[in-house]
Amino acid sequence: MTGCWIALEGGEGSGKSTQARRLASALGAVLTREPGGTALGARIRELLLSPAEPAAGAAGAAGAAGAAGMDPRTETLLMAADRAEHFAAVISPALAAGLVVVSDRSAWSSLAYQGYARELGAGAVRGISDWAMHGRWPDLAVLVDVPPAVAAGRLAAAGRVPDRLEAEGASFHGLVRAGFAALAADSPDRWVVVDGDGSEEAVAARVLAAVNDRLAL
Amino acid sequence: MTGCWIALEGGEGSGKSTQARRLASALGAVLTREPGGTALGARIRELLLSPAEPAAGAAGAAGAAGAAGMDPRTETLLMAADRAEHFAAVISPALAAGLVVVSDRSAWSSLAYQGYARELGAGAVRGISDWAMHGRWPDLAVLVDVPPAVAAGRLAAAGRVPDRLEAEGASFHGLVRAGFAALAADSPDRWVVVDGDGSEEAVAARVLAAVNDRLAL
Repeated sequence: MTGCWIALEGGEGSGKSTQARRLASALGAVLTREPGGTALGARIRELLLSPAEPAAGAAGAAGAAGAAGMDPRTETLLMAADRAEHFAAVISPALAAGLVVVSDRSAWSSLAYQGYARELGAGAVRGISDWAMHGRWPDLAVLVDVPPAVAAGRLAAAGRVPDRLEAEGASFHGLVRAGFAALAADSPDRWVVVDGDGSEEAVAARVLAAVNDRLAL
Repeated sequence: MTGCWIALEGGEGSGKSTQARRLASALGAVLTREPGGTALGARIRELLLSPAEPAAGAAGAAGAAGAAGMDPRTETLLMAADRAEHFAAVISPALAAGLVVVSDRSAWSSLAYQGYARELGAGAVRGISDWAMHGRWPDLAVLVDVPPAVAAGRLAAAGRVPDRLEAEGASFHGLVRAGFAALAADSPDRWVVVDGDGSEEAVAARVLAAVNDRLAL
């Protein structure tokens, strides 16, 4: 018996973390996340999302290129490192045990964020993620799609300091949203798009209906 | 004017870090290292080399595969993330400024350690490193080669707690040494092998002579 792997995807403020939690509860599934689904991954997540520290090059190094934040390829490879660990330690054993797994984000997020929004190209990012996961991708990705104004309002209402990716500008978040839409359109057999505007309960009902419609769980 | 990039390579206890320092001093070069040549890289290095902590999967996750230490692909991708940051923030600006850079390890170490000794295959590891460095490799790699017994004696004499990679067994270190030898034999135009057995001064003279023989610095 092999399990089933469902990824909740979407931009910052889309509500996908909340929806991942609700879906896992409704299905009696394993709830996990990327980045940060393992002990090592939690430390990698900290590197990825904590506000940038002043970078110091090696002694005597010239220049400060890439000093603000981190290089986009560094970001991509840290995400992939987290993913490899998560796949080996959590996803793969759970699937082998026949469990249903709901993950708050997956490799698809790297394609949208680093491939599209950071403009590194989906091909290279896809290849690296594919290697990290031994070629196994989520059985279904659920895109929780919300208009930018709704997402911005939710982040503001959360009333906390935004992390490094949340703090990116509106044009970045627009690219992420367009990237997700393109990915879902390119692979309709692996994606379902759900309207994420509305109450938590209303969206949860839509997500569960979409998953039941697509998977025989 | 473009600079020149020399990497010192070798197994644990080969003396390559000492020799990198001496070579950089002799050449008036920038001295740097992988992993850990940037502020972010120092944090990644800590993840890579600190003894493994007990891994905790996500809540409810089944199984504990990969819980000891880290998955070999995770290790590879963390090394590559460090490399991307190092290349963008230190190596590339230094080369653009026409400087000579001496690096204690480089992508070649990943091919020997993760590609050969972890048996992930040199092809995949080479491709990921190539992407991290935008296709730019060291101009010359100097392999500081020592017999296993000499390396083990130096590590024992150092009298400190071995890091996660140093603590691997003799068969692992044997694979690393064989990997380096194969890489050097495959690309003789990009490698020079130096006998690392002998006094620090004697080896330093050999390294400097080999570099002068191969590069017009």
